[in-house]
Amino acid sequence: MKVDDNLNHEVYMKLAIEEANNALAIDEVPIGAVVVHHGEIIGRGFNTRESEQNPIHHAEMKAIQAASEHLGSWRLEECTLYVTLEPCVMCSGAIVMSRIPIVVYGAHDEKGGCSGSLMNLLNQREFNHQATVISGICHDECSNLLKDFFRILRQKKLHEKQKKLESELF
Amino acid sequence: MKVDDNLNHEVYMKLAIEEANNALAIDEVPIGAVVVHHGEIIGRGFNTRESEQNPIHHAEMKAIQAASEHLGSWRLEECTLYVTLEPCVMCSGAIVMSRIPIVVYGAHDEKGGCSGSLMNLLNQREFNHQATVISGICHDECSNLLKDFFRILRQKKLHEKQKKLESELF
Repeated sequence: MKVDDNLNHEVYMKLAIEEANNALAIDEVPIGAVVVHHGEIIGRGFNTRESEQNPIHHAEMKAIQAASEHLGSWRLEECTLYVTLEPCVMCSGAIVMSRIPIVVYGAHDEKGGCSGSLMNLLNQREFNHQATVISGICHDECSNLLKDFFRILRQKKLHEKQKKLESELF
Repeated sequence: MKVDDNLNHEVYMKLAIEEANNALAIDEVPIGAVVVHHGEIIGRGFNTRESEQNPIHHAEMKAIQAASEHLGSWRLEECTLYVTLEPCVMCSGAIVMSRIPIVVYGAHDEKGGCSGSLMNLLNQREFNHQATVISGICHDECSNLLKDFFRILRQKKLHEKQKKLESELF
């Protein structure tokens, strides 16, 4: 990979991070995605699973649907998906279904990632589509967003527990 | 499995077949799904990928989203999904994501099925959810719907080719 490519990847990943920050602003797990088509952003999305109570509303799914709507086609054959966290089993499947050829992600998901960590659904010969995966772009920024979110969540829960205990004692 | 269970499965699969027929009516690949919660149908869906040019709009995805909307929860932990064709990689992933415990399907999908045929994403120990899969309910009816659809599609295409050839010759 040339340095220029990496710089481009970073530019687009920063936009995916912007989307992740939109999720953070409404107390959702901060994950964001964009779909790029010949240099143009044609789909954006951020995780709204909790606020919308919708199991499908991951960042990638929303960006993919927006991109399809923009192109008027379910085939995203000339697109690149940028996402801050490695896609899960469903989102990796949606990448196969929409035939996206290149997927760029930031942080690895050791517990649920299906684009390389637990398994790689994007390089299965049995499927009628495979995608190239580029990982680790803006890794620390993407990873820290998540780490900070969960650290604060744990602190909040601990604080609530302490408050409840105090109210029971006094 | 008791005979009664099978009868119940057939009753619900017939409703999924009704949904598949809705797809057929608009020239979509006839695949239908329903989500059942304590005996009540809380989600229905049929494939609209081509007519809506949306890679996500598989029957299962639509039934799952409708069920989540009905329950006001992304967790479909007490639901059963009935679908006429074995779920693909994306839909199998959505079953994991929505934590549906029981999946009943009609026809096997040797080429793309990820709930037993190509792989079984519903019994992966690495995921935080596994589902029981029951297959072959109303198998012939589900399978023939698809076979007939593709046979007629091939005939249509052949007819169009012949007409084009004739118009070029005379």
